[in-house]
Amino acid sequence: MRRGALIPAIFSAPVLALILSSCQGAPSARIEPLTGYEQMTTPRVTSLDLMPYPQRVLRNRGTFSLSGLVPVRLHGPASPRVTAAVDRLAGRLARFTSDRLALAPSISESGARQLVLEWRSTAKLSASMDESYTLTVRPDGIGLRASTDVGILRGVATLSQLALEAAVVPGVPSSIPAVTITDRPRFAWRGLLLDCVRHFMPVDTIKRLLRGMAAVKLNVFHWHLTDDQGFRVESRIFPRLTQEASGGEYYSQDQVREVVRFADELGIRVVPEFDVPAHTSAILSAYPSLGTGPGPFTVETGFGVFNSVLDPTREETYSAIGQFLAEMAQLFPDEYVHIGGDENNGRAWAASPEIADFMKAHDIPDFVGLTRYFTGRVERILHGLGKRAIVWEEAWDGSRNDSLAVQVWAEPDLIRAAAAAGQKVVRSQRFYLDLMFPASYHYAVDPAAGISSADGLSSILGGEAAMWSELVTPQNLDSRIWPRLAAIAERLWSSAALMDTADMYRRLDITDGYLDRIGMRERSSENQMLVALAGGRESGSLRLLADVLEPLKGYRRISSERYTVSTPLDRLVDAIPPESETARDFSSLVASAISDTRSLDRRENDLKLIGNWLSLWRANDAVLAPSLEREPRLKELVPVSARLERAAAVGLDATHRLTAALHGGTRSFGVQTGFGAGGDSRGRKADILWAQGALKVLDEASAWNSAQVSIAVLGAIRKLVEAVVPAAAAAP
Amino acid sequence: MRRGALIPAIFSAPVLALILSSCQGAPSARIEPLTGYEQMTTPRVTSLDLMPYPQRVLRNRGTFSLSGLVPVRLHGPASPRVTAAVDRLAGRLARFTSDRLALAPSISESGARQLVLEWRSTAKLSASMDESYTLTVRPDGIGLRASTDVGILRGVATLSQLALEAAVVPGVPSSIPAVTITDRPRFAWRGLLLDCVRHFMPVDTIKRLLRGMAAVKLNVFHWHLTDDQGFRVESRIFPRLTQEASGGEYYSQDQVREVVRFADELGIRVVPEFDVPAHTSAILSAYPSLGTGPGPFTVETGFGVFNSVLDPTREETYSAIGQFLAEMAQLFPDEYVHIGGDENNGRAWAASPEIADFMKAHDIPDFVGLTRYFTGRVERILHGLGKRAIVWEEAWDGSRNDSLAVQVWAEPDLIRAAAAAGQKVVRSQRFYLDLMFPASYHYAVDPAAGISSADGLSSILGGEAAMWSELVTPQNLDSRIWPRLAAIAERLWSSAALMDTADMYRRLDITDGYLDRIGMRERSSENQMLVALAGGRESGSLRLLADVLEPLKGYRRISSERYTVSTPLDRLVDAIPPESETARDFSSLVASAISDTRSLDRRENDLKLIGNWLSLWRANDAVLAPSLEREPRLKELVPVSARLERAAAVGLDATHRLTAALHGGTRSFGVQTGFGAGGDSRGRKADILWAQGALKVLDEASAWNSAQVSIAVLGAIRKLVEAVVPAAAAAP
Repeated sequence: MRRGALIPAIFSAPVLALILSSCQGAPSARIEPLTGYEQMTTPRVTSLDLMPYPQRVLRNRGTFSLSGLVPVRLHGPASPRVTAAVDRLAGRLARFTSDRLALAPSISESGARQLVLEWRSTAKLSASMDESYTLTVRPDGIGLRASTDVGILRGVATLSQLALEAAVVPGVPSSIPAVTITDRPRFAWRGLLLDCVRHFMPVDTIKRLLRGMAAVKLNVFHWHLTDDQGFRVESRIFPRLTQEASGGEYYSQDQVREVVRFADELGIRVVPEFDVPAHTSAILSAYPSLGTGPGPFTVETGFGVFNSVLDPTREETYSAIGQFLAEMAQLFPDEYVHIGGDENNGRAWAASPEIADFMKAHDIPDFVGLTRYFTGRVERILHGLGKRAIVWEEAWDGSRNDSLAVQVWAEPDLIRAAAAAGQKVVRSQRFYLDLMFPASYHYAVDPAAGISSADGLSSILGGEAAMWSELVTPQNLDSRIWPRLAAIAERLWSSAALMDTADMYRRLDITDGYLDRIGMRERSSENQMLVALAGGRESGSLRLLADVLEPLKGYRRISSERYTVSTPLDRLVDAIPPESETARDFSSLVASAISDTRSLDRRENDLKLIGNWLSLWRANDAVLAPSLEREPRLKELVPVSARLERAAAVGLDATHRLTAALHGGTRSFGVQTGFGAGGDSRGRKADILWAQGALKVLDEASAWNSAQVSIAVLGAIRKLVEAVVPAAAAAP
Repeated sequence: MRRGALIPAIFSAPVLALILSSCQGAPSARIEPLTGYEQMTTPRVTSLDLMPYPQRVLRNRGTFSLSGLVPVRLHGPASPRVTAAVDRLAGRLARFTSDRLALAPSISESGARQLVLEWRSTAKLSASMDESYTLTVRPDGIGLRASTDVGILRGVATLSQLALEAAVVPGVPSSIPAVTITDRPRFAWRGLLLDCVRHFMPVDTIKRLLRGMAAVKLNVFHWHLTDDQGFRVESRIFPRLTQEASGGEYYSQDQVREVVRFADELGIRVVPEFDVPAHTSAILSAYPSLGTGPGPFTVETGFGVFNSVLDPTREETYSAIGQFLAEMAQLFPDEYVHIGGDENNGRAWAASPEIADFMKAHDIPDFVGLTRYFTGRVERILHGLGKRAIVWEEAWDGSRNDSLAVQVWAEPDLIRAAAAAGQKVVRSQRFYLDLMFPASYHYAVDPAAGISSADGLSSILGGEAAMWSELVTPQNLDSRIWPRLAAIAERLWSSAALMDTADMYRRLDITDGYLDRIGMRERSSENQMLVALAGGRESGSLRLLADVLEPLKGYRRISSERYTVSTPLDRLVDAIPPESETARDFSSLVASAISDTRSLDRRENDLKLIGNWLSLWRANDAVLAPSLEREPRLKELVPVSARLERAAAVGLDATHRLTAALHGGTRSFGVQTGFGAGGDSRGRKADILWAQGALKVLDEASAWNSAQVSIAVLGAIRKLVEAVVPAAAAAP
């Protein structure tokens, strides 16, 4: 397939302008195969700040300087993906490299320091496409080779991160290390589900998200388009779906085509989800005759599992689905279509004599079986359209079906069962971003955990993060997705042996800065929301509090207040990121300070730094509280700030005691502690009483609060207290 | 001139869409003359949060609800100014009012709650145009009447501020009070000079600034276009001016016309400045033959007063100026052109025998006389072009000249001299925004101070704020201009009797929020710069420090480091606003706490709040210092943060002593103070020693630092110390 054609690249005007003024008389040079000094990295160690980390990194001598004009040579069949990727890279380099490194189309064969891209074919996006690439950076040029143009995209993503991270300090010349990266994904299916029903996401928001996904080499956009709260895609055959059940918020067919085209250019497949037979309140509000039971059916505004369910007994239902899917098949070119199959509560079916009759006639024992019967019919409709189905785990009957993929969201054992049966499976369980768990939680999840046979491994397609949008709006979407999604992307792309959480967080923080520079808004949207909350002004004091808070995790928040699709999501809990970096740093300090393996000097210094933070948090409440009282939307934080103050005071007391103990009790803190470490039994008893009081303060600080946030430093403060009097923790 | 024609208004599409769907069957209503209950406000008291405050405000019964659709009726001769102003107002109302108040063109004569605008003529912008208006707000409609369409602009500016300030809380229905405002400016010339030479300001930046100026009813944009560091306007007769002396940064003639048109639409005159005979290094680098002396002449990159000066002895000089001004007269329609005349250091002339001969031949005694001879020639050229000249004070010879206006920037006595001579004069002295003085400093300056005769008063045209741009870039321009310019705008528009600084600051803060909403960037640019300094992340701890710092004032900063046009201006000193609001609030607290006229309870509570702030600042350094050390551009703040910590500790000590003293010495702070107020002579001596030590710490904290900032709370902390031991302040 290799054609070797030299494709003239088309670039945007500003870059072109730079070429014409600078591209003259460069001497000839070519990228040679790698020779000489090589330093192999093992998959457990990272030597570059990349995420997802490549499979294999070889360091060579020297660096490639990020300055001047670099002609680009493209060798491969015409690919809009490649030209768009190079254009994007050129724009980023021009913006962020200190000496305005510019990429330029190559005018002649000669020219030093070229960027050479070579690929053999253009890929049709699928779960079996080749995404491998080899990136060679030398002082005298950069070469990127791949079988497909999608492999080139992945290599350009790596190069982009290398270059922008090197160019960190404005005005300081920078370079990237000479390196050979040989890379390919561990899993073929690396996705993100975005729920565009509970909160509608504009096309621009989706495009921004797709750019970010491509930056971390994700390749499946699972577009959740229909649910109880709305129907978000235009059907010309069934126009009432959006007329009756979208509130005007839906994607026109032109918009869908544009999203699909945009994603394709980034090497991202679009898998639409039309959830049936449950999660269909919106469908049934438009076409009630398709439902089980008399209705009335209404578009839901609240959240949860509802009773609306399609009628599996009537052929009209399958006929309508068939017409609809045929229409959608024209819009969505991917081989897979997601047809749901989840969370049917069975109530409507249980109330229907027709359902009972139907089950008896077809020998279907239970509603699970009926759901599977139903999705089986829909899957065969898709099959007739040349498509495969992907379904949620409930709709899988446990036997192998090669025209089906199963998405596991609740029951991890089903992954092992699928691997054993040879069933294609995608893992989303423990990849739910909306639950606000830390990156480390997701990072620890291996879709192929416990599976060792080659057959078993080949049935694990990969994984998908999921962003359900009950509590997410276009305003704060980025901060709910980034940077955690990058950690999941690494889990799905990189070696399974890469498991060091501290190293992951180090690179995640750098990657977050990179994502911010290429246009993700996780940092800026948080800032904007905090400023708006503080009445239009930055507040250092509010920021100090916000930096140690996290939104409640799991389903604690959504189950403790009544939310609807129109509940404003503009509180502090909606602004702050899921993970507190300050708390993570503070926890590390505490772990170091109480570790017996550290030197006394180091521990004393750690305790000093800990005391500094605790003093600041203790002092903050007195200044912050009056302004929290003044702003209606901040008032709910008054008790939270007060709890942080009390917890900080307890922590400070513990810190003083630990410092004194380090000195063998020779340093006294007088009235502040009255404590000598390792004292007599009366002293010991007093210490235990103190610790019990301290832990009580921390327990109170951990209790639920109406602001729906948790104070993320309480665990570390508890560790300080427990380090003072280990036994007290266990005491009643 | 009243034509009474009903002009069909043209609106942008979104507003029009709202009309078509909502404007049906509204009952008839008209704005009636004001009757009933009225409440007069005196000029010393403000009852509305407006700035500049109107001349006369009458409160009526009721309010006008900011919701629904309000048809607009326009009665007056066609005016692009009015239609643009209504369009702008409609956009703001649609964005910021809770119930989406929408303005709509009136479709029929009938309709409740109309906005009726009536004017008799369209004005040609000049220093004698009529800007008066009467704005009547009633529950059943709003009427705005003016002689000219510029008066309508001023009234719409008032209405816009009233409406947007009322709609403060998103989602909460709002209304504006029924009111009759009768208003006109105190001074005809209310300007802002913007130096676009030392740092070039893009056209978009200028347009944003013009919108802000219009919002506070300023009416002269003094465009400083030429200076030693560059020539910023395209001349087709003298193309080398921009080819040789602009570095590519200049305004094309099309851009100039666009700025003039844009300003005209806002009722703002554009007075260009072409500074001669000094400040001409840029001109002479392009056309050296026009200069005194052999050169070589180069475009300056540093700042200060340079030797380049035009040759006043040769007719070629005047001929070139004549051709150039004739070309510029086509671009700038205003009657005034500024021709400079300032800061000629005389060195080049002193070295020239031709100059000496010329002065002898023309009986000119000194270089001041020669400068005036020169500007006199240029002024007569302008006169021939149908223009008047405005010159800096040095170029005025002290006698009345009706085709001239004098701009006083250094010597306030010249204002009184001009008033005595009947000479038109504009005050800029003490209105220099680049010197970073507080709003209160500028607000206290009355251009007509000490002048009482009617003739004298009539010669005071008004005043001009000046923003010289040695230390200002497009990035931080807004925070250097706003909100202080609004205080100057009020001084130039409103009653001289309005002098209450506290009330000014109260309204200035509200006005600042209003300006932020209509697109000024004083707040957002500061935030962006701080985030960039902190490596892309918000830092509560850095914000706490930044909030009590101010840039050095006057010429202290520019004289203590070498700056050029290319020195990066991206340090903390460039980000923070000229005035610390936190410091102002803290100073008020301190003044209250040490005031004998307050109750003991109130004072004790004030001392508690003071202590809260001081504790926070004291605790902050320990946490902040390590991150300051890490960021190269923040490192200069390490000693500043340490000084704040020490000063806060001293202040806290003083606060504890004052609190103890309030209790008659019965409350002791133990080792922390060891102090009983009003003790014996030995105690008294110890107190004085303590105070001297405390003041020394504060002196050290006030010393110059390389970060070029001052700690703005030191004065208030000093007051606390002095309140403890009044005599100690005077002790050696």
